Amino acid sequence: MLNVALLGAGRIAGVHATAISTNPGSRLVAVADINTAAADKLAVQYGATARSIDVILADSSINAVLIATSTDTHSDLIERATAAGKAVLCEKPVDLSLARAQACQKVVAAYGRPVMIGFNRRFDPNFAALKTAVDAGEIGKPELLSITSFDPAPPPVAYIKVSGGLFRDMMIHDFDMANFIMGTAPFAVTAVGSSIVDPEIGAAGDVDTAVVTVTYADGRIAVIKNSRRAVYGYDQRLELLGSTGLLQAQNMLENTVVKSTAAGVTGAKPTYFFLERYMPAYAAEWAAFVQAVESGSDLPVTLADGVAALAMAEAATVSLRTGNPVTLASILG
Amino acid sequence: MLNVALLGAGRIAGVHATAISTNPGSRLVAVADINTAAADKLAVQYGATARSIDVILADSSINAVLIATSTDTHSDLIERATAAGKAVLCEKPVDLSLARAQACQKVVAAYGRPVMIGFNRRFDPNFAALKTAVDAGEIGKPELLSITSFDPAPPPVAYIKVSGGLFRDMMIHDFDMANFIMGTAPFAVTAVGSSIVDPEIGAAGDVDTAVVTVTYADGRIAVIKNSRRAVYGYDQRLELLGSTGLLQAQNMLENTVVKSTAAGVTGAKPTYFFLERYMPAYAAEWAAFVQAVESGSDLPVTLADGVAALAMAEAATVSLRTGNPVTLASILG
Amino acid sequence: MLNVALLGAGRIAGVHATAISTNPGSRLVAVADINTAAADKLAVQYGATARSIDVILADSSINAVLIATSTDTHSDLIERATAAGKAVLCEKPVDLSLARAQACQKVVAAYGRPVMIGFNRRFDPNFAALKTAVDAGEIGKPELLSITSFDPAPPPVAYIKVSGGLFRDMMIHDFDMANFIMGTAPFAVTAVGSSIVDPEIGAAGDVDTAVVTVTYADGRIAVIKNSRRAVYGYDQRLELLGSTGLLQAQNMLENTVVKSTAAGVTGAKPTYFFLERYMPAYAAEWAAFVQAVESGSDLPVTLADGVAALAMAEAATVSLRTGNPVTLASILG
Amino acid sequence: MLNVALLGAGRIAGVHATAISTNPGSRLVAVADINTAAADKLAVQYGATARSIDVILADSSINAVLIATSTDTHSDLIERATAAGKAVLCEKPVDLSLARAQACQKVVAAYGRPVMIGFNRRFDPNFAALKTAVDAGEIGKPELLSITSFDPAPPPVAYIKVSGGLFRDMMIHDFDMANFIMGTAPFAVTAVGSSIVDPEIGAAGDVDTAVVTVTYADGRIAVIKNSRRAVYGYDQRLELLGSTGLLQAQNMLENTVVKSTAAGVTGAKPTYFFLERYMPAYAAEWAAFVQAVESGSDLPVTLADGVAALAMAEAATVSLRTGNPVTLASILG
Repeated sequence: MLNVALLGAGRIAGVHATAISTNPGSRLVAVADINTAAADKLAVQYGATARSIDVILADSSINAVLIATSTDTHSDLIERATAAGKAVLCEKPVDLSLARAQACQKVVAAYGRPVMIGFNRRFDPNFAALKTAVDAGEIGKPELLSITSFDPAPPPVAYIKVSGGLFRDMMIHDFDMANFIMGTAPFAVTAVGSSIVDPEIGAAGDVDTAVVTVTYADGRIAVIKNSRRAVYGYDQRLELLGSTGLLQAQNMLENTVVKSTAAGVTGAKPTYFFLERYMPAYAAEWAAFVQAVESGSDLPVTLADGVAALAMAEAATVSLRTGNPVTLASILG
Repeated sequence: MLNVALLGAGRIAGVHATAISTNPGSRLVAVADINTAAADKLAVQYGATARSIDVILADSSINAVLIATSTDTHSDLIERATAAGKAVLCEKPVDLSLARAQACQKVVAAYGRPVMIGFNRRFDPNFAALKTAVDAGEIGKPELLSITSFDPAPPPVAYIKVSGGLFRDMMIHDFDMANFIMGTAPFAVTAVGSSIVDPEIGAAGDVDTAVVTVTYADGRIAVIKNSRRAVYGYDQRLELLGSTGLLQAQNMLENTVVKSTAAGVTGAKPTYFFLERYMPAYAAEWAAFVQAVESGSDLPVTLADGVAALAMAEAATVSLRTGNPVTLASILG
Repeated sequence: MLNVALLGAGRIAGVHATAISTNPGSRLVAVADINTAAADKLAVQYGATARSIDVILADSSINAVLIATSTDTHSDLIERATAAGKAVLCEKPVDLSLARAQACQKVVAAYGRPVMIGFNRRFDPNFAALKTAVDAGEIGKPELLSITSFDPAPPPVAYIKVSGGLFRDMMIHDFDMANFIMGTAPFAVTAVGSSIVDPEIGAAGDVDTAVVTVTYADGRIAVIKNSRRAVYGYDQRLELLGSTGLLQAQNMLENTVVKSTAAGVTGAKPTYFFLERYMPAYAAEWAAFVQAVESGSDLPVTLADGVAALAMAEAATVSLRTGNPVTLASILG
Repeated sequence: MLNVALLGAGRIAGVHATAISTNPGSRLVAVADINTAAADKLAVQYGATARSIDVILADSSINAVLIATSTDTHSDLIERATAAGKAVLCEKPVDLSLARAQACQKVVAAYGRPVMIGFNRRFDPNFAALKTAVDAGEIGKPELLSITSFDPAPPPVAYIKVSGGLFRDMMIHDFDMANFIMGTAPFAVTAVGSSIVDPEIGAAGDVDTAVVTVTYADGRIAVIKNSRRAVYGYDQRLELLGSTGLLQAQNMLENTVVKSTAAGVTGAKPTYFFLERYMPAYAAEWAAFVQAVESGSDLPVTLADGVAALAMAEAATVSLRTGNPVTLASILG
């Protein structure tokens, strides 16, 4: 049984609290947040207690820490928690700075504790089934991957300004998905983008619509499409062409009702946003973490995976500025 | 090369004229209609000549006759054409009277000429593919067949009054489809129906909505649903449950465009009515007729099939009146 | 906050225990089962205690009872629990005997306590969305309802023998669904059926494949199809034709992955059986019960609904034997 | 009535011969081919006569010429036919050389005769319906276009060597489709590609898998994916994200049959290749040409459109070599 402390008491922390509590192999014992009222409320709801991070890290009965605080605290907390001997599951991204994330990776290596990064989409039942089919050779040799990833609506421009930009904040998930599906680090990325959804996003120095092409040393290609706005809901699809077939993971829909009238044949929209779509993925992610920590087996997503995705975001950022392809080697030095 | 005369020059005759003309094994040489202007027009369009039925039947260079006249002339024309040595393709139904159709069947038997009934739906690429899959054992032993067959809009009540009723006019296609898919004559039918779409149809002594359950001696069951009104288009579907699976033939759509907006995900409607949906089936039907006549092989649909479907319509009519199951044996005597 | 006792500790009781525990308005305090080990285990898992039914009914701190015991105990337990002042949610069917269910209904009426019958499918998000659309007039006036309800595999013949037969055990859900969607008691039912899936089921006096046609006084029609075997999974669909359109509730699938190869385009199967398909429905059912009991508002499914569905099962049983339509009036006396 | 001569008697010429003959506004009067046997055969089949190109161009009774010869003859024949006063429909591409195509464009301008380029996909009912919906504002302002265009199997390497390369031979259709849907010339293109399907294609100096990103001055983006091999059939899809929705044109399938078994739910594959998929488009293309020529209205696809697509192919070829974006301005001078 893992005794778990949750760092952070915001919306996504609430999702994790449910996953921790309903998993038969873990229980939530402590919650920490600078907003102590929020920490109290979440702790009471799940029979845990609100405590400071210092107290939590000093408590040897706590085996694992789930970090769901703001991004700028991730690297520090990962380092402190592993130094304190805890197993760690940290929300993505590791950091907005690739250099800081790489430094964190080195520090953590010394402690030898498990650190998993919360790329929850790997645990989505649909994407996971596609990955299983690829690995089973059901479409032969993969050749061309397409990732469609549109949010239902753009966040406030204030958020955009501190987000690290679309590539580090939003496409980071898709970079990890490309790595997950293709199973290899890419050779180079080329990015195009614009702020066609909202010019204010452009004024804030970011793009809201982007296409990144990813090439691999062996000739494979991936293309990632992002938009901050899809008014019909959260559009999350994969498509992989292989030598003997095509695999597609389509959207999950709100329900299966179809209405046929003189106006056409209408079905339900995709589930609205990440909480609706990925709720099962969060539970599966936590279950995988518990299983790996308890059994000592390899983590399904590592800190290195977090760094790899961040390097792609960095390369895409450079490519967007220059217009030219950027190799991962040039970024990773 | 079959030299073909077309009896009738109405809308459906025009469809057949195209099929006859574009088939490399046949050519349209004559058209007959009591409306001589219509016959002339159709003949000119396809390089044929308008002639009387007497002249056509006396012309030994004409090998085949396609009967697309009004239903009350079918039996007579089948008899006269086969007596004249022609191969015959006659539109459904054989007759509104089962007794007359059976009499026709006897007369025709004496002449030994091929007579095919135009159950065009057997040649629909979707239904034909389903039948091929069933016969190949792809779902094991068939157990439960469902036929959905809805017209887009009811015909005028004036037509209803002379149509022979929903079972002989509309469901006759579905009775034949049940025979085609199940490959056996049924044991009994039970009908329910109402005039819920249009009370005037009820006042005219007919129903516009009906469900007929068909039972077979070996325990298999079929259920046929008819409605005179589906405002979203022509709804023509099959569904067959077997011991190792389910086969469905779904509607053909006007196009493949799907629109996702805040209001939902909307695709195109089914093709509007039988001309849109079954145009390829008419061409395939004619090709099958030509092939069978030229090669002397068995016809894919026979006059006996026409009589069998008519017997089911008769049984359903009795069942609707009494509320009770009616065996085919009691109808066929 | 409802303090709830769970009567029964079998598989479906476990599903209900989760729903009770995760609902913020209720908590599980006691579990009773003649298998005391099972009761203990379930109680411990959810922080409740195992007690006898007598103790539970005598405990005035317990507000509600969920009855998930064997069918033959339902009527007695409903009567005892309401007599003890508890609100009751009882699994379907009320009883295998219509007379006993009607007697229970009279007894319960005297106590004025809320009694809800667990027709969980009304709470399936897909069926509920279809019902909402119907009630909103989205397809005009309903005319023709089709219910497809196939189990993945037949139960053991030993179970069949004590089940009350397909109509009382399996189609009872579909009878209630017809009542739910159509919103009116039917006029008559006509049943056909056979034991084509497994002759041993026939030898045990039951059918495994059945079609029941339901007619309504105003001309509407419903048709229900049941099979004990659909090897591709649990097939649970509705289709309702109305004056201005068609509504369909399609199956939920295991995932959204589609594979296109030289062999065809293959997607996932329907979710396997009722636990997979209806898990969200059980939670919604319980939430609706809690909401109604706490607020004193009308129950969404009543004991009268349970009796109505049972009467249809009784009528279908008679119709299957005689072959003729059976009016509900003749059954209800 | 247009009197039409067909230049070329190969496979695609046969498709055009059918379209010309069945259109009520045109008739095929002459066929020319260096293979005179092929010209004779096609002419006889449709009641035309085989003649030399010189004779055809000198015959003032011939109003229109359809050019379906090899690509290297297109520019010359367009020039000669327009000089002879004919209306012209010429198969794509105009030429493999952008400079030659531009020279042709100047020559033709002087004669003022209608010249249409055979970008048949614009007339596909699905793509045309999507275009109609975009123009009607059904998804607001277009932002991000995706074109998927995979052939079922690669052509022989011998063909690849003379094809002008994937961008001029295959993606030229998709460049035109982007122009058709977006309605504006692009700013720049960036190409990546590899010969992952067949290394011999790489050895021949071409790619078989490519992704081209297209940017527009106003911030819109298009991405085109090509593969020479999709073993499941001809994959031809569009997807356009707009400010108020998404439009998708999906594949047409061989039939609508769906089979559900223990192995999954399997439907038919996409139609196999361009003849199956685009047969209705060829007829619609010809009808649009006849209508425009007879009425004197604007052609739906012009020689300028042919040049514009060729310029994109040229830009993509340069981008593939350099890895960098290439503006259309730099290509067009």
